[in-house]
Amino acid sequence: MVSRFRHAALVGKYQARGIRPVLEEIAHFLVRQGLEVTLELQTAQSTGLADYGAMAPDDLGRHCDLAVVVGGDGTMLGIARQLARHGTPMIGINQGRLGFITDVSIGQFAQALAPMIAGDYEEERRTMLTGWVWRDGERIFEGFALNDVVVSRGAASSMIELKVDIGAEFVANFRADGLIIASPTGSTAYALSAGGPILHPGIAGWVVVPIAPHDLSNRPIVLPDHDEIAIEIVAGRDASVSFDMHALASLLHGDRVGIRRSRDQVRFLHPRGWSYYATLRRKLHWNAGVA
Amino acid sequence: MVSRFRHAALVGKYQARGIRPVLEEIAHFLVRQGLEVTLELQTAQSTGLADYGAMAPDDLGRHCDLAVVVGGDGTMLGIARQLARHGTPMIGINQGRLGFITDVSIGQFAQALAPMIAGDYEEERRTMLTGWVWRDGERIFEGFALNDVVVSRGAASSMIELKVDIGAEFVANFRADGLIIASPTGSTAYALSAGGPILHPGIAGWVVVPIAPHDLSNRPIVLPDHDEIAIEIVAGRDASVSFDMHALASLLHGDRVGIRRSRDQVRFLHPRGWSYYATLRRKLHWNAGVA
Amino acid sequence: MVSRFRHAALVGKYQARGIRPVLEEIAHFLVRQGLEVTLELQTAQSTGLADYGAMAPDDLGRHCDLAVVVGGDGTMLGIARQLARHGTPMIGINQGRLGFITDVSIGQFAQALAPMIAGDYEEERRTMLTGWVWRDGERIFEGFALNDVVVSRGAASSMIELKVDIGAEFVANFRADGLIIASPTGSTAYALSAGGPILHPGIAGWVVVPIAPHDLSNRPIVLPDHDEIAIEIVAGRDASVSFDMHALASLLHGDRVGIRRSRDQVRFLHPRGWSYYATLRRKLHWNAGVA
Amino acid sequence: MVSRFRHAALVGKYQARGIRPVLEEIAHFLVRQGLEVTLELQTAQSTGLADYGAMAPDDLGRHCDLAVVVGGDGTMLGIARQLARHGTPMIGINQGRLGFITDVSIGQFAQALAPMIAGDYEEERRTMLTGWVWRDGERIFEGFALNDVVVSRGAASSMIELKVDIGAEFVANFRADGLIIASPTGSTAYALSAGGPILHPGIAGWVVVPIAPHDLSNRPIVLPDHDEIAIEIVAGRDASVSFDMHALASLLHGDRVGIRRSRDQVRFLHPRGWSYYATLRRKLHWNAGVA
Repeated sequence: MVSRFRHAALVGKYQARGIRPVLEEIAHFLVRQGLEVTLELQTAQSTGLADYGAMAPDDLGRHCDLAVVVGGDGTMLGIARQLARHGTPMIGINQGRLGFITDVSIGQFAQALAPMIAGDYEEERRTMLTGWVWRDGERIFEGFALNDVVVSRGAASSMIELKVDIGAEFVANFRADGLIIASPTGSTAYALSAGGPILHPGIAGWVVVPIAPHDLSNRPIVLPDHDEIAIEIVAGRDASVSFDMHALASLLHGDRVGIRRSRDQVRFLHPRGWSYYATLRRKLHWNAGVA
Repeated sequence: MVSRFRHAALVGKYQARGIRPVLEEIAHFLVRQGLEVTLELQTAQSTGLADYGAMAPDDLGRHCDLAVVVGGDGTMLGIARQLARHGTPMIGINQGRLGFITDVSIGQFAQALAPMIAGDYEEERRTMLTGWVWRDGERIFEGFALNDVVVSRGAASSMIELKVDIGAEFVANFRADGLIIASPTGSTAYALSAGGPILHPGIAGWVVVPIAPHDLSNRPIVLPDHDEIAIEIVAGRDASVSFDMHALASLLHGDRVGIRRSRDQVRFLHPRGWSYYATLRRKLHWNAGVA
Repeated sequence: MVSRFRHAALVGKYQARGIRPVLEEIAHFLVRQGLEVTLELQTAQSTGLADYGAMAPDDLGRHCDLAVVVGGDGTMLGIARQLARHGTPMIGINQGRLGFITDVSIGQFAQALAPMIAGDYEEERRTMLTGWVWRDGERIFEGFALNDVVVSRGAASSMIELKVDIGAEFVANFRADGLIIASPTGSTAYALSAGGPILHPGIAGWVVVPIAPHDLSNRPIVLPDHDEIAIEIVAGRDASVSFDMHALASLLHGDRVGIRRSRDQVRFLHPRGWSYYATLRRKLHWNAGVA
Repeated sequence: MVSRFRHAALVGKYQARGIRPVLEEIAHFLVRQGLEVTLELQTAQSTGLADYGAMAPDDLGRHCDLAVVVGGDGTMLGIARQLARHGTPMIGINQGRLGFITDVSIGQFAQALAPMIAGDYEEERRTMLTGWVWRDGERIFEGFALNDVVVSRGAASSMIELKVDIGAEFVANFRADGLIIASPTGSTAYALSAGGPILHPGIAGWVVVPIAPHDLSNRPIVLPDHDEIAIEIVAGRDASVSFDMHALASLLHGDRVGIRRSRDQVRFLHPRGWSYYATLRRKLHWNAGVA
């Protein structure tokens, strides 16, 4: 069952100050552990690190059996979307505050990574959302999201009205600032701020969270992830849809956003003893005390 | 696939005024449809209806292949807990406002039931919670719930502290008025009032909702239903646990409430064309408009 | 104490279909009651109603001692902002569903208005917000709002960070989709959708409601209305500020929005027996029943 | 304006372990500052401190011009209710985590108190609630609260129904676990956990917060504090009312709880530079960061 990794992709939050020496240190460590190391292309270009080969994400996915990602949850989200189709397992190393999905701290990366590279880790799979925008019978856009798909009103509109169907069934019309369709991974991100519940990653569902809904009895609703969700723009100017917070299209009345579970899953590797709930408690300051 | 029913149990909300003629009318109808009819014992006793045999719920479960329940969601919850082990399918007829799980209106029962009796219906299965209370290594109580298990502070205590584990993992300590563990069916009952999300019945999970939590960052959390949840009373006097709102035990520090998915499921039959989402929209007054 | 009105301004939601005969009927009625009637200029132009004089809102404020407004809450908000400096009392007639502040239904306008014109009414005063935008020491914008002032993130930004001071005191930094500063009148509008409380119009305060805040322990906060609130844009691209939902400026980092209670108040007249709480119950569907 | 204090009451959380040497140290300090010191009677008795005179709270109120309270917010609430009628100003010294209203830390009490005793402090007044229970035309109970009055369902009841009036006006019927009427001081206590907003102490109002309301469109509502609020028990067994979390009566259908602003106010003294908002930020962990 346990197998050593052989070829690691190294990805950094390349805009971050002082990232170069950190990446060099990690690369040295990985080489000393007997791994071949290849840098992600943009990481290599922006840091000027030239001692290792560099490849675009898609090629990394084809050649590497592990990705080591240095940065925060946002960096991880970005590369995870690109590597998901290749099934490359990923380890997140965080330079600052630990994230929900980047849980190895930079100060302890060597102790944490050594056993993981040797095959001793906890693996966790996360579902992804894949979506399309349809206009007049044509697919004008498609995208992937690990966290969420959000349909929002434009700044000049006081609200948006959205008709939601799942499979062949009508769910409801929502009049709100917008609507979030979040995966379990995304349930601790924007959806949580908008009043949604936390979904354990083992839940085979999405949570649909209306943002500032006009109907005061609207509530977040957790739907099974095996049916396609369709969201039609009924009213509201300059609506937009975003995948993992990247706004991607200006939508018109009658446009439909379709959302499905992707066939691909993201594979996260955690140090032995990692606990999803410990991460929750730490990130959400539970038990920090009020009085 | 389609099979006619042969023997119907008839259950009424026996405290309800004017229930006797309603039950008689339904019984006549069922007989005319070719079914044998047996009344639930307490229903027979409190209404004085003596034209049909009467049995205790457990015997109804053994002899009948259908239960017709007249009343509101509360009546249905009560009998559903008792028939679940027998797998008896149930139809709910509501005398007043339609409920979440009693969706045939009394005024249209004949049109609705005729095709259902002939085998033309939509069947839906709902998970149930089964729970125990452990004290000093002994099981001092056990119960079933279709909606929820609630652990609450006593009236003389300002809060309760509860330690929650799932399987072998520690989730968190919650300091609150109480904690609700709700099934998808129960997610539209008390849990919804306490700020929980709606869970579609197809979600294989429970929602854990803290009631008036001290930690302002506590949020409802949806957990998979395949592991046992354990709740330990850490602090707070006169704590109680209730199953479907029936308070059942006075708890001491160190007592543990264990909750698991029951092997039994409740089978609800709905008229063809029934929609879970239409029920939600109607019950929660969605799209009723604010301004 | 009781005094007859003499000169009514008549204002209509001029984009509304079929508004002309409605306005004619109301105008006839007012004339029959002995009032002089002048139409609001845009209302006159868009409906083609030429039998009465027409004036711009500011002139109406100078010449009329009453304004009769036909439309919904939005129509009332618009004209109320323009007439507030003149202290003109206003009566709202609603063609559709009654609003929070337009509470005479078109079908009963004659019975409702006759005694009011004769001086028999309940008067209620509502506070208004007045605000400015400062950039590099210069005031680049000013506006009025009866409902709310909202500072929001741009569509391309995932959040906005706002530093809030009141008087000389620092309140907090809020990272969120935006921040609503609502008057009691506005507390039942957008602020309510975003999770704010209802403020009775007699409360001398504003409610500050963060929209989808990152800090889960952020809560709406009710602040006294006698100090100036200052909101500085700390982070986030394309932020905007809106007054009563009219987006009015694209904001830069370092811009400050200042908000104060206006010296002017809006005067609403209601039929005798009018109840603020009855309006709440009706608009929010309280006691409509869930189960 | 500035006047030295002369006679300090010293009150301790007498159940607390190790409180005696702490109280002795503070008493010595106060004496060295030239103050006469008298211990609160129960504090003296339970700690065995006999070097200073001891008086019951009411006598302390008559003889002392300052109260120094050592403990948490709960200790302060208790003595504040007893001293309010005498207008005795109070300083709170906290042994553990600083509270909302006990904001001098034990480690720095000497530096903090020296200037305060000399008259250099910030004074803040807080409103109090006074309430009665009426049954069959008789007043069967009365109480005071600095934080809140709470009417709750009994453990055996699934909900309570309460009819709320303010002055001569009907507000609404609430079906819920209970209803909190909180002062601005209490708005950061139980009411906050139940979903209420924060009320700045300068707001002349109460917040009414339904706990787990059945009507999903029920919202906290801020009402002016100059009218009497009346709460009638309409349905639900074993209802109770509590004043500052002390449950005080078992209520019957038809019982009415009346609540008014007390003529007395609590006077809290804070070190110069104290900030209400800084306390909020610290206690609620604002800006502690989520991601």
